[in-house]
Amino acid sequence: PYQRQVYDLFLPESLREDLQKRSEATRQVLPSQPGVQLPNLQHYHSLVPLDTKLRSTASTFGLPSWVFKATSRKNGNTFCLRRIEGFRLTNEEAIKAVNSWKKITHPNIVTTIEAFTTRDFNDSSLVFVHSYHPLSKTLSEHHFATNRFGRPAPVSERVLWSYLVQLASALKAIHKAKLAARCIDINKVILTEKNRVRLGACSILDVLNFEASRRIEELQQEDFYSLGRLILSIATNTPPRNLADPRPALEQLGRTYSPELKERISWLLSTPQNVATKTAEHLVYDLAQHMDETLVASFNTQDEVTAHLGRELENGRLVRLMAKLGTINERPEFDNDPNWAETSERYTLKLFRDYVFHQVDAQGNPVVDLGHIISCLNKLDAGIDERIYLTSRDHQSTFVVSYKELKKQVQSAFSDLLKGANKPQANRY
Amino acid sequence: PYQRQVYDLFLPESLREDLQKRSEATRQVLPSQPGVQLPNLQHYHSLVPLDTKLRSTASTFGLPSWVFKATSRKNGNTFCLRRIEGFRLTNEEAIKAVNSWKKITHPNIVTTIEAFTTRDFNDSSLVFVHSYHPLSKTLSEHHFATNRFGRPAPVSERVLWSYLVQLASALKAIHKAKLAARCIDINKVILTEKNRVRLGACSILDVLNFEASRRIEELQQEDFYSLGRLILSIATNTPPRNLADPRPALEQLGRTYSPELKERISWLLSTPQNVATKTAEHLVYDLAQHMDETLVASFNTQDEVTAHLGRELENGRLVRLMAKLGTINERPEFDNDPNWAETSERYTLKLFRDYVFHQVDAQGNPVVDLGHIISCLNKLDAGIDERIYLTSRDHQSTFVVSYKELKKQVQSAFSDLLKGANKPQANRY
Ligand SMILES: Nc1ncnc2c1ncn2[C@@H]1O[C@H](COP(=O)(O)OP(=O)(O)OP(=O)(O)O)[C@@H](O)[C@H]1O
Ligand SMILES: Nc1ncnc2c1ncn2[C@@H]1O[C@H](COP(=O)(O)OP(=O)(O)OP(=O)(O)O)[C@@H](O)[C@H]1O
Ligand SMILES: [Mg+2]
Ligand SMILES: [Mg+2]
Repeated sequence: PYQRQVYDLFLPESLREDLQKRSEATRQVLPSQPGVQLPNLQHYHSLVPLDTKLRSTASTFGLPSWVFKATSRKNGNTFCLRRIEGFRLTNEEAIKAVNSWKKITHPNIVTTIEAFTTRDFNDSSLVFVHSYHPLSKTLSEHHFATNRFGRPAPVSERVLWSYLVQLASALKAIHKAKLAARCIDINKVILTEKNRVRLGACSILDVLNFEASRRIEELQQEDFYSLGRLILSIATNTPPRNLADPRPALEQLGRTYSPELKERISWLLSTPQNVATKTAEHLVYDLAQHMDETLVASFNTQDEVTAHLGRELENGRLVRLMAKLGTINERPEFDNDPNWAETSERYTLKLFRDYVFHQVDAQGNPVVDLGHIISCLNKLDAGIDERIYLTSRDHQSTFVVSYKELKKQVQSAFSDLLKGANKPQANRY
Repeated sequence: PYQRQVYDLFLPESLREDLQKRSEATRQVLPSQPGVQLPNLQHYHSLVPLDTKLRSTASTFGLPSWVFKATSRKNGNTFCLRRIEGFRLTNEEAIKAVNSWKKITHPNIVTTIEAFTTRDFNDSSLVFVHSYHPLSKTLSEHHFATNRFGRPAPVSERVLWSYLVQLASALKAIHKAKLAARCIDINKVILTEKNRVRLGACSILDVLNFEASRRIEELQQEDFYSLGRLILSIATNTPPRNLADPRPALEQLGRTYSPELKERISWLLSTPQNVATKTAEHLVYDLAQHMDETLVASFNTQDEVTAHLGRELENGRLVRLMAKLGTINERPEFDNDPNWAETSERYTLKLFRDYVFHQVDAQGNPVVDLGHIISCLNKLDAGIDERIYLTSRDHQSTFVVSYKELKKQVQSAFSDLLKGANKPQANRY
């Protein structure tokens, strides 16, 4: 069990790389350029633009908007800020519309944190703070990106059902809170992990269109229409502006996908005259079998990530153990202290350090083997009964010691160190 | 961004402890006792009994059964073995019934690996190999355990719905494969993580009762009945043997839980005369709103575990970096080599090592601070521009170096080491 291989100890390269890229994206800051300087907004600093387009289409909000990553001075966390350019707040009540949104936390909705006005861009701007999902893309960026043949990749029916299930679940939570999403737009739904979608711009239209307020029931019915149009647009690779009459696209969809999918989208697109008032519960019923598929996929992912986490946890233990060994060995201030002399247990630990890190072969060449290091440290951490031979540097003496004894010696040497230490923080080890 | 606090770097204690306990349970072996010795079964060795009861009730299989953890010599993985005591296989075809089960992988079904007969227990036994889920409990062990007042904890309706959703999903997969579960029993469904249930003894009755084979449709209909009885038994804290007439228990359930739950269980318990043939799809459809809740919970858990994993990954990088530093510093075989002399870059790295691990305060007392160590190593790993002062051990000279330069020096010293090394395995670092 302590013979675990190195390739086993670490994550499969793809998931590792993916998480590493996300963490780098989160930490990334702009190189300071003279002249160009983004302002700090309240306690949000280190703004980095996230927009990939040079111009904002202004289609969703009626005004251009800009998206930034920023760090909060309050807690060091990273957030997503959206600036609505040139909006003058005339009614203080309007901005309170975000309060109901703050309470909505759902895995398919980007959480709204707060909103405020600012003059820091030298105009009147409105800023919405949302939770930040590193390296996300809008569905438009993801599905309408063209490859070198100028064609987007076809979308599998499974993925379309999964989007429908996730957004239906989001709508159910939103409508239950007596709100409407209003932003089910191919530019405003973001893909944050493999196949996970989140509504990305909630609360914004509630503030911007506060004066022209419309009945919530009407807006909720529109959400269903927008959802139908979104899926139809992706399935048939048609920009939403060309879907004023959705019938030709529905026909096209019927040729590639199942009748069931066509039926579901037709229902979403149907006008209220033709069907009774639509409800999210009704939609969830209709999607039940696909919800089951999505649930199975989610459970499987969860199990896989948990298994990886269990393995990485072992690394966490080894970090702390190496840090401990590092603080014990070769401390200069004890160089002439007989209690830390080369005859005591610290001498054993020094030879053990050589055994772990400084292996040589019969010819005296260094052997550099991470597997050996990890395996020794795991055994030390477990304090097992296995014995090893340690040889002094002058090769004059050899003795046998068990990992169990070594573990005790590390603990005692480390606690000696803490006794003499300034502000000991042993609980962190 | 490199100032991350220590408490932030590691997992919340509960999840960490939970995963640690699971990993210990997986690795645990029996202390060797003279006289008592469990046999090896084919390539499965190191058997550890998992049964918590001294006697097996023989109720599910008609024969006593015993559960063990074992390690496979083929791949080092751990499996769960169930021995059916005193079963003589008369028809070779019977054991092939497991083949259809091997193909079923589902997050709410314990996977069947294989089955074989053995005489290693000095009788005729049949052994089923399943995937192993450390520290799982049967639903009976979990829900019928009494506290010190002799009363089990009441079960929330949310948990009951979640069980129903998960087992309906399992049934859907099983029935679709033209199989029947046959083991929806309070002793045979196991709880493997918080609120996750898995059918734990699939395929066994297909082999044991091969001769007395019954129509699959009939067995599938029985699955629904068993599921209803299982939930009713947990909800009302009634052992299944007292549910021959379920009506009093259903009445009792109606007083504590919603009419919807009562209706769902009544449907499951109703006899085929009263309703059309039941299907798992129908059940999934009826459970749609609760499936949505379970999906939201699963997505949230997945997000949480992924966030933890991202943080632990940083530890993985630090393990490798410390291992590298460990191989470079104080190598005895280069003690007299002028190229590794104290004037070269290795001298800088040695002083850096002192700076990281051997801090002292103004009075010369050791400062032991894991936060300092982690922060230095993170900066080294990132190779940032920040400069630090390094002082020689005799305090005679001080010089300034950036993490960027230090990172280069580590790389160059390490590649020098690999040049002289036997079987270099640099790709592992
Ligand atoms: N919460 C978020 N976290 C991280 N990135 C986000 C978040 N919300 C949006 N983004 C990213 O910011 C970029 C710009 O988003 P935006 O909504 O402006 O899209 P757009 O295509 O530029 O639309 P528009 O034309 O309306 O400006 C996209 O790549 C998107 O994935
Ligand atoms: N696949 C598995 N992985 C890990 N542990 C398991 C697995 N299957 C069962 N167990 C555990 O083994 C123990 C014994 O299981 P078993 O099915 O024998 O229950 P039981 O209550 O003893 O029932 P019976 O009376 O039929 O023997 C239980 O604690 C159960 O959680
Ligand atoms: Mg934009
Ligand atoms: Mg048992």
